Amino acid sequence: MTGFSEETSAEVVTASFAGTPDPRLKRIVTSLVEHLHAFVKDIEPTEAEWQRAVDFLTATGRMCDETRQEFVLLSDVLGVSMLVDAINHRKPAGATETTVLGPFHLVDSPPRELGADISLDHNGEPCVFTGRVSSSDGTPLPGALVDVWQANGAGFYDVQQPGVQPERNLRGLFTTDESGRFWLRTVVPRYYPIPDDGPVGRLLAATGRHPNRPAHIHVIAGAEGHVPVTTHVFVEGSPYLDSDTVFGVKETLVRPVTTVDDPARAARFGVENPFRLLEFDVVLAEVPR
Amino acid sequence: MTGFSEETSAEVVTASFAGTPDPRLKRIVTSLVEHLHAFVKDIEPTEAEWQRAVDFLTATGRMCDETRQEFVLLSDVLGVSMLVDAINHRKPAGATETTVLGPFHLVDSPPRELGADISLDHNGEPCVFTGRVSSSDGTPLPGALVDVWQANGAGFYDVQQPGVQPERNLRGLFTTDESGRFWLRTVVPRYYPIPDDGPVGRLLAATGRHPNRPAHIHVIAGAEGHVPVTTHVFVEGSPYLDSDTVFGVKETLVRPVTTVDDPARAARFGVENPFRLLEFDVVLAEVPR
Repeated sequence: MTGFSEETSAEVVTASFAGTPDPRLKRIVTSLVEHLHAFVKDIEPTEAEWQRAVDFLTATGRMCDETRQEFVLLSDVLGVSMLVDAINHRKPAGATETTVLGPFHLVDSPPRELGADISLDHNGEPCVFTGRVSSSDGTPLPGALVDVWQANGAGFYDVQQPGVQPERNLRGLFTTDESGRFWLRTVVPRYYPIPDDGPVGRLLAATGRHPNRPAHIHVIAGAEGHVPVTTHVFVEGSPYLDSDTVFGVKETLVRPVTTVDDPARAARFGVENPFRLLEFDVVLAEVPR
Repeated sequence: MTGFSEETSAEVVTASFAGTPDPRLKRIVTSLVEHLHAFVKDIEPTEAEWQRAVDFLTATGRMCDETRQEFVLLSDVLGVSMLVDAINHRKPAGATETTVLGPFHLVDSPPRELGADISLDHNGEPCVFTGRVSSSDGTPLPGALVDVWQANGAGFYDVQQPGVQPERNLRGLFTTDESGRFWLRTVVPRYYPIPDDGPVGRLLAATGRHPNRPAHIHVIAGAEGHVPVTTHVFVEGSPYLDSDTVFGVKETLVRPVTTVDDPARAARFGVENPFRLLEFDVVLAEVPR
C-alpha cells in the first residue's frame, strides 16, 4: 500500500521515481509530478474534462508529421517556447536579443552573394535589407554568417506552398564583407497566421485569440569566437506587433521600413531610386573564456 | 509589445487568454499556463531537453489508436488518473472506495445468471467470487447491478488476446438477489504489466520503475437511488500490492482468497469441496437529496 490520497498524491508518485538512475531525469520527473498534481488540484477537473484533455493531447500528437509539429505550435501559443528561449539565452547587455526559431527553417538556406535578390517569386513590395554584424565592444565582424528566411508579401513561406513558390524562395545564407556588413534584396514580409487547422487552432478560437504573427524576417547570425543568435527583425507598424500569438516580439527587434531617396545609394544596392530599406544591426556576445 | 520576459512570462501569456468567453475554460488555461511556466522555470530545460519533451509527447500521441490510449497510460503512471478519481469521488465514510476504471472496459459485460462461470478459457485457479451490496446504513440492495471483469490466470484480458481467448471471457453483468447478494465462478486473476512497448513503457524503464499492477477484479456496482462505484478488489498477497504502477491500490479494497472446506456451501455454489473463495461486500452511498 502506498497511502495514495488527494493530500499525498504528489509525494507518493514522486517517491515512485526515487530510483531513477539519471539524476537530471529524476529532477525533471519529480518537478513534473509536483507541478502537474498542483495543476489538477487547482482546477479539480471532472472526469469528462480530463477525458477532453486526453483527447486534445491525442489529436495534437496525431496532427504531427514530417512538415507539421503541432506540439511545437502548442508550446509556442502557451509561451513556453519563448520561455525556454529566454532561459537559454541570458545574454550580456548589448547583445542582440533572441527569439524563437519557428517551424519554417526546414531546409538549408542557399549561400548567396551580397546584394542578391532572394525574392524569386517577386510577390511583395521590393525592399533592401542590410545591417552590420559586430562584437559587443563594437568591433565589426567580417566573414560572419547571416542566415535569412521569411514569408513573402502574401504571408507564406516557400515550404508551405511547394509547386507554387520556387524552391528556396526568400532564403539566403550571406557572409559579411570586410566591414562586417551584409545587404540583400527582398520583399517586405507580411504578417501571417500560424497553421490553425488543427487542435492548437481550435484552442485559439475557443479562447478568443487570433493565430497571427506580425511581419518579420528570421535571422541567425554567427561569427568565430562569438555566441550565435537566432532572432527576427520585426517590421514597425505591422498588425499584431502587440499580440504576436507566439509571444516572440521584443521591443529591441522592431525596425522601420523607410523610404530612401538617394540615387548614389540606390545605385550601390542595384535598385531604382527611391527605394524601401530595412536596416538591422546584429551584436554578438563573445564566447565566455 | 507585450513585455514578455523570464520574469513576466506567465502573466503575459495568461493575459492573452483574458478574452476567453467560457469562464471554466478560461480558468483551466490560466491555471495551466501558471503551472506549466512554473515547471519550466523550475527545471530550466536546455533546448535539446525541450525538444525531447516534444518528441516524447508526439510519440505518445502517435501510439494511440482504437485499442491503445497511451496518454491515459501516461496519466495513470504519473498518478493523475487516481488523483482525478479521488477528486471526483469524495464519498461519505463507510461507502466502498473507488479506484481507476482502467483501459480494458472496452466491451459491454454480458448479463449472466448468479452462479455462472465467467472463465470461458479455464486458464487459472478456479475460485468463487461473492459479496453483498448494501446501502450505507446496512440495508441490503436487491436488484443492484454488479459489472465484473478481470484478467485470466496468465494476466491477460480477452481484448488483449482476440482469437486466443473467447469473446467476453471473464466478464459478466450480475443482478443481486433479494438479500443483495451476488456470486459467480471465475479464476484467481494474476498480476500483469500495463502495455509497456511504447513511450510510457520507455519512461518507466528509464526511471527504474516496473510496469506491473497487482492481481485484481474490476467491479462497477450500482443501485437505484445510490451513487455507483467503480472499483477493484485486490488479491491479498499478490506481488506489487505496495507498488501498483498506476497507484490504484487502497487498503480497504484488499481481500484474501481463502480455502473453504464446507460441503454444503460448495454444493450451493455448484463447485467441488474444498474450494477457493474471494468475498467482497460493496457499500453504496445514497444519492444526496
